[in-house]
Amino acid sequence: MPADLSTVLLIERHRGTLDKALESVRTREYWSPHPEHPKAYPDAEEGRAAYEALLGHRFELDQPGTDGWAGDERSPYGPELGVEYPHPDPDVLLPAMRAAMPAWRDAGPEARAMVCLEIIARINARTHEFAQAVMHTTGQAFTMAFQAGGPHAQDRGVEAVAYAYVEQVRTPEAGEWIKPQGKRDPLRLRKTFTAVPRGIGLVIGCNTFPTWNGYPGLFASLATGNAVLVKPHPRAVLPLALTVSVARDVLAEAGFSPDLVCLAAEQPGEGLAKTLALRPEVRLIDYTGSTEFGDWLETNARQAQVYTEKAGVNTVVVDSTDDYRGMLSNLAFSLSLYSGQMCTTPQNLLIPRDGITTESGPRTYDEVVADLAAAVDGLLGDDTRANALLGALVNPAVKARLDAAPGIGEVALGSRAVTHPEFPQAVVRTPALVKLDGAKPDSEAAYMSECFGPVSFAVAVDSTADALELLRRTVREKGAMTVSGYTTSAEVERQLEEVCFEECAQLSLNLTGGVYVNQTAAFSDFHGSGGNPAANAALCDGAFVASRFRMVEVRRPA
Amino acid sequence: MPADLSTVLLIERHRGTLDKALESVRTREYWSPHPEHPKAYPDAEEGRAAYEALLGHRFELDQPGTDGWAGDERSPYGPELGVEYPHPDPDVLLPAMRAAMPAWRDAGPEARAMVCLEIIARINARTHEFAQAVMHTTGQAFTMAFQAGGPHAQDRGVEAVAYAYVEQVRTPEAGEWIKPQGKRDPLRLRKTFTAVPRGIGLVIGCNTFPTWNGYPGLFASLATGNAVLVKPHPRAVLPLALTVSVARDVLAEAGFSPDLVCLAAEQPGEGLAKTLALRPEVRLIDYTGSTEFGDWLETNARQAQVYTEKAGVNTVVVDSTDDYRGMLSNLAFSLSLYSGQMCTTPQNLLIPRDGITTESGPRTYDEVVADLAAAVDGLLGDDTRANALLGALVNPAVKARLDAAPGIGEVALGSRAVTHPEFPQAVVRTPALVKLDGAKPDSEAAYMSECFGPVSFAVAVDSTADALELLRRTVREKGAMTVSGYTTSAEVERQLEEVCFEECAQLSLNLTGGVYVNQTAAFSDFHGSGGNPAANAALCDGAFVASRFRMVEVRRPA
Repeated sequence: MPADLSTVLLIERHRGTLDKALESVRTREYWSPHPEHPKAYPDAEEGRAAYEALLGHRFELDQPGTDGWAGDERSPYGPELGVEYPHPDPDVLLPAMRAAMPAWRDAGPEARAMVCLEIIARINARTHEFAQAVMHTTGQAFTMAFQAGGPHAQDRGVEAVAYAYVEQVRTPEAGEWIKPQGKRDPLRLRKTFTAVPRGIGLVIGCNTFPTWNGYPGLFASLATGNAVLVKPHPRAVLPLALTVSVARDVLAEAGFSPDLVCLAAEQPGEGLAKTLALRPEVRLIDYTGSTEFGDWLETNARQAQVYTEKAGVNTVVVDSTDDYRGMLSNLAFSLSLYSGQMCTTPQNLLIPRDGITTESGPRTYDEVVADLAAAVDGLLGDDTRANALLGALVNPAVKARLDAAPGIGEVALGSRAVTHPEFPQAVVRTPALVKLDGAKPDSEAAYMSECFGPVSFAVAVDSTADALELLRRTVREKGAMTVSGYTTSAEVERQLEEVCFEECAQLSLNLTGGVYVNQTAAFSDFHGSGGNPAANAALCDGAFVASRFRMVEVRRPA
Repeated sequence: MPADLSTVLLIERHRGTLDKALESVRTREYWSPHPEHPKAYPDAEEGRAAYEALLGHRFELDQPGTDGWAGDERSPYGPELGVEYPHPDPDVLLPAMRAAMPAWRDAGPEARAMVCLEIIARINARTHEFAQAVMHTTGQAFTMAFQAGGPHAQDRGVEAVAYAYVEQVRTPEAGEWIKPQGKRDPLRLRKTFTAVPRGIGLVIGCNTFPTWNGYPGLFASLATGNAVLVKPHPRAVLPLALTVSVARDVLAEAGFSPDLVCLAAEQPGEGLAKTLALRPEVRLIDYTGSTEFGDWLETNARQAQVYTEKAGVNTVVVDSTDDYRGMLSNLAFSLSLYSGQMCTTPQNLLIPRDGITTESGPRTYDEVVADLAAAVDGLLGDDTRANALLGALVNPAVKARLDAAPGIGEVALGSRAVTHPEFPQAVVRTPALVKLDGAKPDSEAAYMSECFGPVSFAVAVDSTADALELLRRTVREKGAMTVSGYTTSAEVERQLEEVCFEECAQLSLNLTGGVYVNQTAAFSDFHGSGGNPAANAALCDGAFVASRFRMVEVRRPA
């Protein structure tokens, strides 16, 4: 039976997207194949209805080796989702996944890329449904769940497919090798080169960005010929179950085994990620989450290539600015977005205790902190806007950290509870800003560890030079997904760059408008550097894909 | 003071070589910038004299942090080298190396590539001197020491430089990002992208191929902006000390700190590699040697990316042939070259116990083994040719394994001592071939472990299908740098390919002429696959270079 989705058809549909993606990562110019505005997707109501139809039911995937059902997601906005997912018997499921791989390998890099892009296109068409699923598992506000969980995540998926494709076709499929031998006949060999997969890729999802953080590894592994087993965070299963479901449909329609992409939901307290991570069939692991488990994976899952994004401490160095209002409003937005529950949210704002210079004169440390607090207050004064920006706290641990903030230092900006009009059970909180003295040892314990959630520290430092030293130490010891700096001094700018070059951190300078340090754009920005303790990989570069396959050469006399 | 070697001058000299290398790895056609015939290098006597002038002296490198002198190399051909090398105090040397890195980083990928190619060109000009140094540390016969230690090693160095260069320039140095915002002004950012090094690269050299196995890691790390510390095998220091010396000269002439490349010689029994491998400054490690220490590095040097080439068990599947003589002479040569002391030498020849088909009729297992033994005898019957092919045993452990061979099974071909006319102390031995029954458990212990040196096993198997299963198990459990097969059956060929695809091993089919399974050519052949236990990296592919640097992005409002 011929496949419904022929490679020819898929190439016609998606080759242009692939080529444009390849061009974009070379130029780093702005490009996205996926509009980000919800209005570009007219089916808001259908999407919401499709999401609601999933609630309270079993999510059927027809995978081999299902030995039960698992799932007890509850929306950070209140409602129980009541969805159950297949729980795997790895001894049955993993061999079935392996068995699906040779045909996928034989399809070659281009056909694999096209199938991956078709999967992403189908996901894109259901963005409203995904947005609801992301919102009700992560607590993101709707617009963010839509954009970050939808088109931006899909962009990162396309980016990974593009990197995976180009890496595999750097070596030709075949070549003739003719070595001259002086007066004798030359030596002649015919050589073929085949990209072969490593095995099963395990994607261990996170609670806050199941699709955005999950897609790069999923599509990088799949596009390089591997099968992919998705183990979602138990509180954020649905967006990835939908993803797996779409992938399985497309694979089957294209004539491949759907078992190339499977879901592994876990029973409460089961620790399934640990079990799966140590299976010999699993040769690639993509993980986003705590440093503790990331380090455990890197240490113990030695049979696999392990790509981790872990905790970090993000710093803003405030030296001087020629747009004080712009700086304050930009920072206020960055601290507020998704209640600071982003791996890219600034945590430590390093401000000289003697103050900074601005276009309208000097401002003391106290003034800068008070002005920033006021900017946050102004941004979030209106409850509708606050709800639209903040979303809900994803879990009780985040709330506990927020509640503990006043015990850390002097509160410059207290957190405020916001009522959500539609979901009164949602825990919505504005961010807290705490003043710390960088020179005090008891402060150091606070600002030198990640306080994930809506708590930031305004750290008084002796000077900008002191701030740069503290930045260097923070990145080296704790890692950082982002570094931000405000300065009008070319010399300080150079010094900031030097610290970021030497400690390997991504730097945003003088952001005062509509671009925020928390956000990176696929095809142009790298997310993380892979070179400091916050992450051992960057999204997305050659290193993220190059080890997901190997080239096997066969040579014969020609 | 301007540098003697300007980047402009170096580009004029070497950019063409880089471009041709980049083209060659894309086409995989034959190419080498370095002639391999000794006669292409007219200074044989000067080279030998230069080598001899080094003997009995201290090898000065003018490195920081030298706290003593070390070295007690003795040629496998007999003579003591009597050369002493600087022994480092890592607490002084490593910080000096780190301090040299920012300027090297700032030079950018092209300037670094040019400096690396100048280093290789200078090494190439001294190939006769290097050949003597390689011969008298590895025991290789002169021609092999010249070719594998000279032009072929230099080729692998150029290949690594090319891969490193292209990986770094995949991302542009800068780009403008303009994101439309409907009716509002677009968002505009200026972005710069800088390839930043990981830290210090540690190259841990091996006894048998100090330059060939050392150059890829050395030049891949150096070309990506890292400093490189070379810790040679204590019995093969001189070829790498010469390399370090040339690199330091070129770096200084080009206006960089020579401390970007340093040598770390060790005192007897010091275990310096372990100490250096765990230093926080060391972020990259390239290692060739035993599985035991390779595994130790992978497990313990967690602060570093570790690239290892370890032990493996190489298999030849003999199913059928239409050129029986060609097969025998090709295999005889492969078993004899450098007394089987290559990581690529076949060890297990799997031959159906019912025999094979050839163009002149069937041959029984016993006949094939006897014919192969006769082919080796014929090849090595003349002592002059035997010496030219075999070289000397590199160390007493190899001789001990050879001496133990008759205890393993029935000897089909005994080893013979050959006298070297110039160096009577050299231990020169022809290879032994031992018959084993693949079905017997006590045989399995022998053929399922690496027996490095001139001992091969003719393993009787039930069938070709049985051979393929044993091949699969061997590669999966023990790893393999090479797999070789002889068959006239398209179906067996396909099955061999399938095993090699699934277990990730490089396959040579039906080699009967002047290409041998032990040899790979830079720019065309991959050495190892990186996907089975024999090695976690291949020479040379994107994965070998992509993690040696990271891209740091700086973005600012445009």
